[in-house]
Amino acid sequence: MVKKLPKVEIAAVGSELLTPYFQDTDSPYIVAQLLQLGLSPSFRTIVADEEEDLIAALQNSVSRADLLFVIGGLGPTEDDRTREILAQVLGKKLILDESVLRAIQKRFARRGLEMPPSNIKQAKIIEGAEVLINHQGTAPGQWLEEKGKIIVLLPGPPQELKPMFEKYVFPRLEKWRVSQVFQLKLKLTGITESQLEEKIKDLYPPSSLCRITTLAYPGQIEIHLSAYSSCSQEEAREKVMSVEEKLKPRLQPYIFSTQGESLEEVVGLLLRQRHETLAVAESCTGGLLGHRLTNIPGSSEYFRLGIVAYSNEAKIKLLGVSPKSLANYGAVSEKVAQEMAQGIKQLAQTDHALAITGIAGPGGGTPAKPAGLVYTAWGGENESQVLRNQFLGSRELVKFQSSQKALEMLWRHLTQNFI
Amino acid sequence: MVKKLPKVEIAAVGSELLTPYFQDTDSPYIVAQLLQLGLSPSFRTIVADEEEDLIAALQNSVSRADLLFVIGGLGPTEDDRTREILAQVLGKKLILDESVLRAIQKRFARRGLEMPPSNIKQAKIIEGAEVLINHQGTAPGQWLEEKGKIIVLLPGPPQELKPMFEKYVFPRLEKWRVSQVFQLKLKLTGITESQLEEKIKDLYPPSSLCRITTLAYPGQIEIHLSAYSSCSQEEAREKVMSVEEKLKPRLQPYIFSTQGESLEEVVGLLLRQRHETLAVAESCTGGLLGHRLTNIPGSSEYFRLGIVAYSNEAKIKLLGVSPKSLANYGAVSEKVAQEMAQGIKQLAQTDHALAITGIAGPGGGTPAKPAGLVYTAWGGENESQVLRNQFLGSRELVKFQSSQKALEMLWRHLTQNFI
Repeated sequence: MVKKLPKVEIAAVGSELLTPYFQDTDSPYIVAQLLQLGLSPSFRTIVADEEEDLIAALQNSVSRADLLFVIGGLGPTEDDRTREILAQVLGKKLILDESVLRAIQKRFARRGLEMPPSNIKQAKIIEGAEVLINHQGTAPGQWLEEKGKIIVLLPGPPQELKPMFEKYVFPRLEKWRVSQVFQLKLKLTGITESQLEEKIKDLYPPSSLCRITTLAYPGQIEIHLSAYSSCSQEEAREKVMSVEEKLKPRLQPYIFSTQGESLEEVVGLLLRQRHETLAVAESCTGGLLGHRLTNIPGSSEYFRLGIVAYSNEAKIKLLGVSPKSLANYGAVSEKVAQEMAQGIKQLAQTDHALAITGIAGPGGGTPAKPAGLVYTAWGGENESQVLRNQFLGSRELVKFQSSQKALEMLWRHLTQNFI
Repeated sequence: MVKKLPKVEIAAVGSELLTPYFQDTDSPYIVAQLLQLGLSPSFRTIVADEEEDLIAALQNSVSRADLLFVIGGLGPTEDDRTREILAQVLGKKLILDESVLRAIQKRFARRGLEMPPSNIKQAKIIEGAEVLINHQGTAPGQWLEEKGKIIVLLPGPPQELKPMFEKYVFPRLEKWRVSQVFQLKLKLTGITESQLEEKIKDLYPPSSLCRITTLAYPGQIEIHLSAYSSCSQEEAREKVMSVEEKLKPRLQPYIFSTQGESLEEVVGLLLRQRHETLAVAESCTGGLLGHRLTNIPGSSEYFRLGIVAYSNEAKIKLLGVSPKSLANYGAVSEKVAQEMAQGIKQLAQTDHALAITGIAGPGGGTPAKPAGLVYTAWGGENESQVLRNQFLGSRELVKFQSSQKALEMLWRHLTQNFI
């Protein structure tokens, strides 16, 4: 028997989402989550937080959808009225939930503040709805089942919505699952999109077997493989694996992750397993490499020290870069990159060192050393390596690609996987 | 006489836009274009190309909007049916336009191909509509005026839509220009959204005068003021300014930018103007503060050195933190934060120093020192200051808020603007 697919809709509320300055990133996140259950929405609406528009949008969505996500407009301010208007559209009362109110008050108290009266409305729950706890903010979510329909109300800030969705919403949607999905996300580095295309173009499988989507980011390519089965996840998995088996031999040197991990996570895991330590010396990246490495919980186990030696003086004084090298080759040179790596390794007494020196741009370039020229260096026990890179793009893009290349070098040395 | 604002809507058609892999980039482009005319949409809808859904979406949009953009689904394939369904919803016939057909045939001929029969439908025009020529593809746009409403039908590929919009659509919209627009973006730090709300809630102006949109980010709030005038930009500016005049006295201590600059930009500008220099010592932020400071082009003029002293050893050896302070108070303490600031200032010989030490979490906390506890310190000529902060949220959020607080401290000292 084929189950009838439920009608799914997402309505995101906020006038700011109808300006060029803000994007609704919550809906794409929810779309991706739903895909894991074999569900895909028929409508995404973005509506201004004007009463008349919001009523019209919610009336339509409520009447059409079997499963409706309403996002945003749950804040304490005057123009946050999603909660009130959704209740009105449903013909339901809002009821003050004392335990939610106490949780909000506590949140303020933890920061030594008193809750302003405007936050009271965040504790109001549509009658019959269950509260979905928000551990990252004051507005709770709400889960309402009504005549076989599900309406899920969620706060707009992604850092609040995502953990709530994962913890409270996704598990409740399990019974709406229409098919078993298997997905595999291969993350690659050190290869361009067109190089990849050349390597795998003859492998594109019939779409009934497995879908391949390639997404290119600076310094990284993701290949998403996904397959569905109405019977079992095992069947879906087999479809994906039959395609992965063909891809892997060609792409092995570039794949650093198959479980969604970032490059800094993979490198961190490897260092941890080997009980080895790392220090970094940065110039043009200004601290980004250290920032990325320390985004990983537990990174203090292997990350010891970072030095952002923006001035030549700091390079000499702290990293022991020779003034001669600076004079002869300039701060952006293979020699200085190598000395920076040696210097930081010596100073921090670590097993590995990374160093970056370059011209982030947009200014500061010369014909011989244009903006985007970056040297990345790795130093290990008795070895070291320096790469010359010419990156394109904005200052932030050059910084990101530089940090990515440094991490790639460390990953290649840790896995002895060279290209 | 005040002109009533037209109701604007955008409907983008395509099931691929409801997957995680593709984004509707046409609508944000159109939103940005409309803003120049003082127009902003009330609704953006993304709808799957299923007949039932498309009928529902277009019926709603046609009934609500004065100015409606319908995008995509104009291709030659089976599932491209926007043209047909829009005609059906409007109760109008589709008429084959011979000159459009010839243009499509010619396009194929130029590539040495014969036009496949499936492309014939692209030459069908809704009765009464004007053709908008597509120089980049086969599907023309259509412009339909009907009972005072405008409906604009455009192809989905951005490289086709954008030049058509610029050349044929924008000039025709000129007569819909409702106004001259003036916008002001105030950025605030050191205040929560609800504290702000309490301070200004009695000032919310009638929306006819000036629109206030409040956007809260971690460690930052933006207030967008925008006003329109049917006469002149000067009049729009005056409306915004009359509201800003009332806001400013209450919010002065928190406003760091009125031109859209980030906090690190403002701080950088102040340091540059004063020919002063900065160095930073980071622990839990791992380099993020240096990264943010060096995202600003030209930051090498004032940013000298950053040290990410993740280990106690590095704090002692490089920053001169006293082992006694570490033993007595712990690495996350007021004393150590102050010594880190002093140490980096001494080492780098700068005018200002910032230091951050804390527990980014999620692990590593204790009841006395929970995750999110962060000390931020500033050191100047003969003064210094340390703040104890208890931040909430994920590891990355704690890191960001810590860097923001450190930048705020420096900004307050540079501007002598204390709260």
